[in-house]
Amino acid sequence: MNRTVLYIILLFWFSAGYLKAEDGSRLWLRAETTATAQVKTNRKSPTITIAVEELKTQWKGAPVQLVLKRDKELLGLKKDGYIISGDKQKGVTVRSVSDIGLLYGAYHLLRLQETQNGSNRLQITESPKYDLRLLNHWDNLNGTIERGYAGHSIWKWDELPEKISPRYKEYARANASIGINGTVLNNVNASPAILTSDYLQKVKVVADILRPYGIKVYLSVNFSSPKILGGLPGSDPLEPTVQQWWRDKAGEIYRLIPDFGGFLVKANSEGQPGPQDYGRTHADGANMLADALKPYGGIVMWRAFVYNPGNEDRAKQAYGEFMPVDGKFRENVIVQVKNGPVDFQPREPFSPLFGGMEHTALMPELQVTQEYLGFSNHLVFLAPQWKEFFDSDTYCKGEGATVAKTTDGTIFPHSLSAIAGVANIGQDINWCGHHFAQANWYAFGRLAWNHELTADEIAEEWLRMTFTQQDGFITPVKQMMLDSWETAVNYMMPLGLHHIFAWGHHYGPEPWCDIPGARPDWLPRYYHNADEKGIGFDRTIHGSGAVSQYHSPLREQLNGIETCPEDLLLWFHHVPWDYRMKNGRTLWDELCYRYDTGVQQVREFQKIWDRMEGYIDEERFRHVQSRLKIQSRDAVWWKDACLLYFQTYSGKPIPYDIERPVHELDNLKKIKLDMKHHN
Amino acid sequence: MNRTVLYIILLFWFSAGYLKAEDGSRLWLRAETTATAQVKTNRKSPTITIAVEELKTQWKGAPVQLVLKRDKELLGLKKDGYIISGDKQKGVTVRSVSDIGLLYGAYHLLRLQETQNGSNRLQITESPKYDLRLLNHWDNLNGTIERGYAGHSIWKWDELPEKISPRYKEYARANASIGINGTVLNNVNASPAILTSDYLQKVKVVADILRPYGIKVYLSVNFSSPKILGGLPGSDPLEPTVQQWWRDKAGEIYRLIPDFGGFLVKANSEGQPGPQDYGRTHADGANMLADALKPYGGIVMWRAFVYNPGNEDRAKQAYGEFMPVDGKFRENVIVQVKNGPVDFQPREPFSPLFGGMEHTALMPELQVTQEYLGFSNHLVFLAPQWKEFFDSDTYCKGEGATVAKTTDGTIFPHSLSAIAGVANIGQDINWCGHHFAQANWYAFGRLAWNHELTADEIAEEWLRMTFTQQDGFITPVKQMMLDSWETAVNYMMPLGLHHIFAWGHHYGPEPWCDIPGARPDWLPRYYHNADEKGIGFDRTIHGSGAVSQYHSPLREQLNGIETCPEDLLLWFHHVPWDYRMKNGRTLWDELCYRYDTGVQQVREFQKIWDRMEGYIDEERFRHVQSRLKIQSRDAVWWKDACLLYFQTYSGKPIPYDIERPVHELDNLKKIKLDMKHHN
Repeated sequence: MNRTVLYIILLFWFSAGYLKAEDGSRLWLRAETTATAQVKTNRKSPTITIAVEELKTQWKGAPVQLVLKRDKELLGLKKDGYIISGDKQKGVTVRSVSDIGLLYGAYHLLRLQETQNGSNRLQITESPKYDLRLLNHWDNLNGTIERGYAGHSIWKWDELPEKISPRYKEYARANASIGINGTVLNNVNASPAILTSDYLQKVKVVADILRPYGIKVYLSVNFSSPKILGGLPGSDPLEPTVQQWWRDKAGEIYRLIPDFGGFLVKANSEGQPGPQDYGRTHADGANMLADALKPYGGIVMWRAFVYNPGNEDRAKQAYGEFMPVDGKFRENVIVQVKNGPVDFQPREPFSPLFGGMEHTALMPELQVTQEYLGFSNHLVFLAPQWKEFFDSDTYCKGEGATVAKTTDGTIFPHSLSAIAGVANIGQDINWCGHHFAQANWYAFGRLAWNHELTADEIAEEWLRMTFTQQDGFITPVKQMMLDSWETAVNYMMPLGLHHIFAWGHHYGPEPWCDIPGARPDWLPRYYHNADEKGIGFDRTIHGSGAVSQYHSPLREQLNGIETCPEDLLLWFHHVPWDYRMKNGRTLWDELCYRYDTGVQQVREFQKIWDRMEGYIDEERFRHVQSRLKIQSRDAVWWKDACLLYFQTYSGKPIPYDIERPVHELDNLKKIKLDMKHHN
Repeated sequence: MNRTVLYIILLFWFSAGYLKAEDGSRLWLRAETTATAQVKTNRKSPTITIAVEELKTQWKGAPVQLVLKRDKELLGLKKDGYIISGDKQKGVTVRSVSDIGLLYGAYHLLRLQETQNGSNRLQITESPKYDLRLLNHWDNLNGTIERGYAGHSIWKWDELPEKISPRYKEYARANASIGINGTVLNNVNASPAILTSDYLQKVKVVADILRPYGIKVYLSVNFSSPKILGGLPGSDPLEPTVQQWWRDKAGEIYRLIPDFGGFLVKANSEGQPGPQDYGRTHADGANMLADALKPYGGIVMWRAFVYNPGNEDRAKQAYGEFMPVDGKFRENVIVQVKNGPVDFQPREPFSPLFGGMEHTALMPELQVTQEYLGFSNHLVFLAPQWKEFFDSDTYCKGEGATVAKTTDGTIFPHSLSAIAGVANIGQDINWCGHHFAQANWYAFGRLAWNHELTADEIAEEWLRMTFTQQDGFITPVKQMMLDSWETAVNYMMPLGLHHIFAWGHHYGPEPWCDIPGARPDWLPRYYHNADEKGIGFDRTIHGSGAVSQYHSPLREQLNGIETCPEDLLLWFHHVPWDYRMKNGRTLWDELCYRYDTGVQQVREFQKIWDRMEGYIDEERFRHVQSRLKIQSRDAVWWKDACLLYFQTYSGKPIPYDIERPVHELDNLKKIKLDMKHHN
């Protein structure tokens, strides 16, 4: 082989490798691994070994010392906290009371390096806001994922425990790099089979891989497991045989997985079994499980996502069911509450359980997967949504009692603080379907660690680590990310509209949807209430009264049509079409302008993105470009569908300076996408 | 029955009538018929009776006298001409040498009334520019229409001669009202069956209905008729038995239809038989038919639309075949030439046969049906296109020798002058599919009468007669009409691009189309020639040399890349992507801006039209609104398809201030519309 041929072959090989590397599989962890840093440590453990290895191969600064110790300064922090001191050019020390704190410190150093952030002098003290920072996988045992838009599950139950996907470790590393320390492996609509001995063997293998990265494994359990798996007559939580079955099962689990995290339970919700089937309360059910796990340090995360078809406003029901049992839960139970009172809508007010339940630990449940925000087709950066949620003032202890402070232990010092995000991870090579959906996984981890970070900071970190350091890219693309959620709200459901999605999926618009015999609270009309007079859900004291579940003075603010934030106007009020908005427009006109603004914004995103072609690799550029085209078309679809449909009630013209609809309502009504609720 | 019930019934009856009336079936002939005008005449004839009836029922002015006479003033006009004099309020006289001139004068008076045009004093002298003003129906005997987009044929051959559709008379009246005086009933791709005795009986019935409206019937004939119908061995025009067969057939026709107009022939073109099959010339073929018709005053319209697959530029072939036989045709032959040298493209230069053939009468063939301009989905007012054609300077006799003057007898005083338009008429209730397509039928008639009318005048007349007198409607909608052709050129084929349509239809874009084994000159690549260097068809003296078919100095203008009109640049030149246009943009950028301008213009049309809602009836408003939506989506489709495809050659970005594509080229390539060339 002569030199030229060798050169060509090598060139091809490197090119191929380079191209392959730009498929998004490396997420935000793209640091070169050619460094040869000096790293010393005073202890050894699998976790510390990972920290040393990460730094050795990627850290380009001065020597690093990883010091495990329990000094006074460190004892003021949470166990996962760490202190970084020194100088990037002279020498750096990372201290923590825990192995995982050192690993987090190592990732922090690498993040500083990869974002080219800050001065050489380092004096960083970090302590997480929430003790438990969990992903919830809604992954079914057959490999499908409920609300999954990035392919099938990464958990290969059919291959485990023998065959181990390299993804498990990559997953662990990615999560550790952003501080996530727990994961619920299976869907909250749980198959009892997960608790069979066969499956527990598989779970053990995953737990062993995740453990060195500081990630505990949790499982969603089916409340009827004693009956279904154990052959008991029922699963009444006050029945001793049932309690014994759970104690035995807990013992079996902990023999395999000594640091098993605990159970996540969806009970008496959307057809799932639960304690109410036996006339017992949520507290009865949760406490029974908590008692079984307590000897091992396990916890129960009991979901508050409950509602029944009936006359009561769905938005009120969780509050109605859970407030009476406030304070009746064991110390190792935490009630997991979705951010809003309905269901992960594009924009919701916060759930009134936050600031409502004072005597029970509550953990927010955020949705990272974009069930209601364009799946993995739309670029929607969720940090701004979550920040709005965290920063919402509950007024439960006067002004400043934000949702964040009611859940992170600041206001209610329970023994547990936690937060969960419904994962958007699948087996797609880029993990999340859309390259920018990775930013939501990243942002969830970063905010779970520190909800005081701004969306701007997180977007900038993620972009610099994931794409490039060039400001010509960072500045416009970051702005696009920061605007993207509000944009999606505009073209989907502005002004507090909610749940006007298609019946068969939660992707496209179907405000007209009417399925004979369907549960009213699963139909868009239930939520938008459009009629000739106006539109919106009257939740004032003259309507469903949902406003009364909030503390004063928020309650009164929301109740007043003039004081209610306009972004939530139609959530709380049925508003006349001619109602004057604060900008002087009528409600109808404003609705039209909001939808159109959404469309124009996505078109701007396309322009912004197309200008980025030279800054980044072709492969990811094209992929995102292609998704933005879909988003652009979808935005027009949403706008036309909603405006043409609501116009049949308003009877008013779309303001004539707005781009006109390009679809016929009748044709839009015929669109039936072949999309399911899992994938 | 009490009064209220009666009232309700009447109300319903009137409403129903009113609604039914707004379906477009009345075309531009919507004058109230409740008038009781005084009308006198010095003669009686079926045609004059119609004139009297039209005025009696619709004319709201002073008494009218219709005077048939042959005074000196009238003898200076063509036979169909007329003079209107008098005062709308005091008394009006219409004079003509012919019955039909009086009918045309009557329609003129009504047009003045219905457009609220002009003063009371009348002194109008009208004489048509072309003697023969024909529609060509590309209607097949089975009821389908080649390039028909308004339903099946209005000619119900299966019902004739027994059953007579009321549409025949409505058709005759509409044509008479705009001066059309001839119609070719059947497709130029002619079935020999039209000349069978059975069919001639049917034709006779139609001719009898059209006659009082001054409309002669013509037929397209298949050159092989003697062989196919007569059982002769061949159809060689120099063969006496063939000649006799045609003489006999002519005799048979004229016995049934004494004023039969003559034959239209498509010979040796696109697979049709012709004299070249026997080694004879076009002149041999045409003259043989002319001789058969001459005793009866019939004419032959011989089409110059000929081209063969081969190395010669298709745009050059008609010139190449017909110039050598110039002057060899009988006096009752007229050669029918499409406006452009290729085939009714969105924009073409004029055919060089105009101004080229000096010794043969030529008649322009325009296409009223929108084969290449969005069928009956797109609003494209064709008068501006035709005006550009009429006003094109051939320079055949120095400056000012416009196409119009070379064909209307001004420059070459042949014994025949004529013009044909390929009809857009079908059995749709609104006749033309799109309400605004009626304007093209109207404009063809008006320009055939007087090619000096402006597009503006014609649009205004048509709008006032068809919709409303309100300026709030007329002004913006007229502007939309006047802009609409250039708009369509922009979003379809700007800068002289041509024939980049889909293979299966001429509706959507398929610049990439490549059918294995297909005739090269039926494939878009033949015309656009896009490559890495540039785009366009080099027809300069260094290319196909087609420019040489034009007279100086036009020839040199077209040949020079700097002097060639930019609207035809890519028709005549293969232009580098980086070529600087006169506005300073590169060719590539200009192409992008033109496409985008087209899209934005259609969106503006939508805005203009939506504002018109209050001015006109709901039914036609909605129909046009709906078509504009399609046009708007199609414009984006065209833009994306062409720019994304040509970008694969230019390798340049679409200027970033332009709205980005929303489609993927690969997906656009998969679009296969179920459209045929007839309907």
